[in-house]
Parts: sequence; C-alpha cells; structure tokens
Amino acid sequence: MDSDLSSTSNGEIIDKAVDFANYFCTYSFLYHQKEMLCDRVRMNAYYNAVFENKHHFQGKTVLDVGTGSGILAIWAGQAGARKVYAVEATTMANHARVLVNANNLQDVIEVIQGSIEDITLPERVDVIISEWMGHFLLRESMFDSVIYARDRWLKPTGVMYPSHAQMWCAPVRSDLCDEKSNDFEGTMADWYHFIDDTKFNYGVDMSILTNPFIKETKKYCLQTSMWCNLHPDQVIGSPAMILGIDCSTVTVADIIKFTTVFSSIIIKEEDTRLCGFAGWFDVHFRGSRADPAAKVIELTTAPSEENGTHWGQQLFLLDEAKSVSKGDELSLTLTLERSKENHRLLEVHLACGIVKKVAVGKKFYIE
Amino acid sequence: MDSDLSSTSNGEIIDKAVDFANYFCTYSFLYHQKEMLCDRVRMNAYYNAVFENKHHFQGKTVLDVGTGSGILAIWAGQAGARKVYAVEATTMANHARVLVNANNLQDVIEVIQGSIEDITLPERVDVIISEWMGHFLLRESMFDSVIYARDRWLKPTGVMYPSHAQMWCAPVRSDLCDEKSNDFEGTMADWYHFIDDTKFNYGVDMSILTNPFIKETKKYCLQTSMWCNLHPDQVIGSPAMILGIDCSTVTVADIIKFTTVFSSIIIKEEDTRLCGFAGWFDVHFRGSRADPAAKVIELTTAPSEENGTHWGQQLFLLDEAKSVSKGDELSLTLTLERSKENHRLLEVHLACGIVKKVAVGKKFYIE
Repeated sequence: MDSDLSSTSNGEIIDKAVDFANYFCTYSFLYHQKEMLCDRVRMNAYYNAVFENKHHFQGKTVLDVGTGSGILAIWAGQAGARKVYAVEATTMANHARVLVNANNLQDVIEVIQGSIEDITLPERVDVIISEWMGHFLLRESMFDSVIYARDRWLKPTGVMYPSHAQMWCAPVRSDLCDEKSNDFEGTMADWYHFIDDTKFNYGVDMSILTNPFIKETKKYCLQTSMWCNLHPDQVIGSPAMILGIDCSTVTVADIIKFTTVFSSIIIKEEDTRLCGFAGWFDVHFRGSRADPAAKVIELTTAPSEENGTHWGQQLFLLDEAKSVSKGDELSLTLTLERSKENHRLLEVHLACGIVKKVAVGKKFYIE
Repeated sequence: MDSDLSSTSNGEIIDKAVDFANYFCTYSFLYHQKEMLCDRVRMNAYYNAVFENKHHFQGKTVLDVGTGSGILAIWAGQAGARKVYAVEATTMANHARVLVNANNLQDVIEVIQGSIEDITLPERVDVIISEWMGHFLLRESMFDSVIYARDRWLKPTGVMYPSHAQMWCAPVRSDLCDEKSNDFEGTMADWYHFIDDTKFNYGVDMSILTNPFIKETKKYCLQTSMWCNLHPDQVIGSPAMILGIDCSTVTVADIIKFTTVFSSIIIKEEDTRLCGFAGWFDVHFRGSRADPAAKVIELTTAPSEENGTHWGQQLFLLDEAKSVSKGDELSLTLTLERSKENHRLLEVHLACGIVKKVAVGKKFYIE
C-alpha cells in the first residue's frame, strides 16, 4: 500500500493514501465519468474550444491532466495533435486506454496511470488541456496539479486550455433558507427530547453535550454550502467577480487563500428577501497572448434557465432572510481558504453590510 | 499526520491514516452517537445486561473498547466498578471525558484516546464490555480490536460483555427485488442513449466501455446488499444460524472468512415469491462458564414489528424472484469474507438450490 507523504506548496503535509481514499476513488467509477460526459455545457465548451481552434493542436504535443475516460485527449488527437500524454491517477486509466484504441488513436495518445507529480514525460508540451474545475471552481484543489504540470511540462510558448477562470458571487433568494432553519430547529427539538429520555430511562445526564451538539448541527444545517441550480430570477443583485485567474501565470499561493471586498446592488423591482449568496465560476479558452484563440469559447456555470451544469452553483444561506429593496447596496467581504482537515475542501467566510436606500416621499397642499 | 502501517492477524496491511479517513471519522459526530443512543433495543439490552448482573461489575476493573460517548463505561461505573478504562480512537473521547465528569464518575472512569492496539493499561481487567457489532455483525471488523483487547488485557478469569454472538440467514420476499431490477434496466437504457449521443454529437465511440459499465452497474444495483428493517411476515422460510461465536475463545481467523452449508424450509402457507435472503445477528450476555450471568440478556436484530434496530437486516436480493411453496427446501451455501480493497467491508457469496415439494393428487372412479 502506497503511503507517501508529500508536501504542498503551502507546506501542508498530504498523506497520498488518505487522499486517494477520500478523493480520487470517486473518479474510478464509469457512472461518475458518465455524469460529467453528459454535462452538455461542459462537453460543448471543450469540444468547441478544441475544434474551433485546431491550429493550437495540429502537429502539436498535448498533455491532458486527469484525463478520466480520455475524452479530451481523444479530441486533441482528432484535432490533429502529433502526440498526446493523457495522465490519470485512478484505474480509470485502463478504460481510457481501451477507449483510445477503440477510436484508433493508439499511435497518438499515450495513457499514463499515475499522479502528475510522480510521472515523467519525454518532452515538454505545446498545450496543457485539463478539466480541473470543482464546485465553486476551487473545491477539490485539483488546479494545484495543473499548475504543477504547467511549471514542469509546458513549453514557455505553450498554451493553457482553459486559459482563464473567474469566480462570481451574487445575492439570491431561496426557500431553502427557511427549510434549513426548520431542519436545525427540528434536530434540536429531537436532541432535547433525547436528553430527557436518556436521563429518565437510562440514568445518564447528557445535557453537558448540548453545546457541542448545537455547534455540530449548526455546521451541518446552517454553515454547509449547498449544491443548487438556481433560476436566474433568484439572483436579486448584481453579480461580482471575486477572483480572476490567468491560468498561465497563477500560483498556488494565489488560490490557497484570498480575501475580496466587493459590493452588489439589489436589482429586483419588488421588495424581496435576501436569503444568501450564490457562488459560481466560468472559464475561458483564449489561447495565449502570443498565440490567441481563433474563436474564444466560454464555459459558464452561472444560474441559467436551460444551461445548468453538473457543477451548479454553491449556495451560502443566511440563518434568517433579510428584507431588501431595489437600490439597496450590499458591502461584502469574502475570504476563501482550504479546510485544515482536508485540503480538498474549502472554508468561506462571508460578511455582509446592507445600506438601505431610503426614499422619503409625501404629498403637500398649499392652500 | 499519522501514517503507521499495521498488519492484521491474516497478514493484511492496514494504513491507519486511510482507515481513519474511511472508518473512524464517522464516529466523531455526536449526531451519529445519538443515533446509536436512541436505539432502544440496543440501549435496553446493554443497560439490563449491566444492571441485572451487577455482581460482574461491583468492585471490578472494566475495559470499554470503543467507548464513543462513554455510556457503557458510565453504566459500568454506576453499577459499582472500581475502575473503568474507556478507550476511544476518535475525538469523541473528549466528549466522553466531559460526560464522565458531568455524571460525577471522574474518580472511577479513565477515558483514553487512542486505538486499543496502541494504548497501554496499568493492569488486566475483570470485564471487557464493548458494542462492536456492525451491519450483519461483522461489517466494520471492529471485533478484531475486541479480540485483541481480550487476549492482551482480560484476566484469565475475566468476562466478556457480550459473551456470545450469532449470525442468521433466512429467505424473504420483498418488492425491492423488482425495484432494483428496474433501476438496473433504467441505468442501462440511459447508458445506451449516452453512447449514441456521444458518438453523434462529439465524434467519440464509447461502446467499448459498455461491458465494464454493465459490470459496475450490476455490482451497484444488484450485488450490493441493502439495509432494511423487514416485517416478520416477509420472512418466508425457517431462519438458519450460519455462525455461532463464543466471544471468550473466538479468533480473528474464525471470522475473517467462513463457509456455511445450511437449509431452510419455506413456511408460508400460500404460494409466495422468493426474492432473496436477509441476514441479521443477535448477541447474548451470559457471563462466563465459571461466573455466569444472574440474568441472561439477549439483543436481537431479527425482523420485528416493533423492535427494529439501527442495524436492521442486510438484504441480499436475487436478480429475479422465484416462485416457491410451503414445504419447498432451499439448500444454501454462504461464504463470507472481507473485501480486499477495504478490510472493514464484506463480500458474501450465496448459492441456493430449490427442491420443490411436489404433491400429486387425482380422483378415481371404480365402476
């Protein structure tokens, strides 16, 4: 059993075997791969990015970081790449290899099973393509591996696919706010019943654990962000970009922790309820400055009536909805950092001040 | 980060940090502890086992393996133990310590955080008490740690709580059999649609992955046993004991893999459907031969109208129901072993032959 310890750029110690048990294992199921391969927004964006910009691939060397089923590597091959290195940490690599053969690209694509940090390529590459984005962009911390791959294996003239990424945040309304509050109240009512019961029937007073239980339940019910695909109407204020990433130059230090101060203006006509905030991302395929894309492609996970993605949005709910009106200004500070217990999870701290736009109006008569 | 490798009695290598990530972590939530503490069948059995057999505890030394919230240790203390060592691997140990103090037993109970294999006690004990049972008794493989504790820390005259355990298997009927078959068919229909779609829209033929996907989906939909709390009416044949364990003498080798050949007679009056098999367990608190219990207590997880447990039963469904009648005899072979990927999970192989009891009857006239 592999039990290497490796150290990330911020000095965290990662136990690779634990990381595999917690994280990579999910990617070794075809069911999970299929879920991603059925995400039409994702598929169309990468497909168009490759085939509308064939000049980036024709006769070039390509590295696909985390190839999964191998689809991006196959597209790169079909678009005319001379050589594609498709690296995959899980046993999904075996399926990718079979798929490459079945699509007659075995002379172009080399599937390599291993983590990108451990494997060696015979050359630097012209293009790194990767679908590394997690929920709210950075969950999973897979981008670290892409940055590592870029610094180690991309030619100075090389191109990143995607080339740019942005994180967004906007105020939203959602009935889930009340639902989650009710869950919390219900769980606590149950707890107090349990305390009485255990004292009465089994002679043990457990009330001393009430405070830690409140803390645990709050974390679970009220402080854990939720996956959702919002209707655009649920966005009640102007979205703000909270992080912009140039994939050619960003470092792990830039994304490991950041704080952004921003504002949002309530845009809904009618009086409405501020229930929380949604976070999402988009990425762009622009090529590089020296070698720009023929056609820039965007992949966005913003709230959309018809183009929802498997990423959806992350919903950060307030404990209690606040009444807001058109023109009210929200002053926001968002800090994002990695969980100390599991570097692939995130912790977000959101502070919000509301400046009400107060309109005073009255009718007078001069008589 | 702890990354010890340790070896189990059958030579498996266990990465402790992985094991912690996969297994122990769930036990560090109060919510999970509460679920177990609200299981009345479980609570009553242990409570009565201790308080109806106080002579086993009065003035004695006790070891609680995996104390969790500390409830068993507290009962042992309340029953008059001189000293209780309450060992817990997770941070739940902190809560247990607080609870012990709140119930005024800090002079009797010592909470020790660590795995039983790593910690040291100042003496051997008179009693080992533990709630080590997992789904279908052996899932979680926690009993290994109890066996280790017994061999290392129990006096030769010591008593095990519980003292005996039994595993049971019986034929059952259940509509879940059709539901799971439908799930499988639906997932496969979806897959074929996906294959066509990916070929047509994205130029990649994925049909070569159909066989591995069938295998993966069969495992998930049709070969993964399910948790259930059956109504006793759903048991259609005589239950058979497939393993009996004397906790004072059993070794890990006895439970790591075993094969049992047994039979069951269909007992339902009307024609019925054999949909699969249910597995459950019971444990008994009998004390030891030299120092028997004053009152023997039983904890059973058998199908029950009113006394369901959080363990429920494990349901092993056939792919297709078979028609059976009263008197039909099922000849069964069950092999249970640990999963190679995760020693806390189990693999069960069930083979069943059906001998129909055929009754022939006809009316004759002599004229």
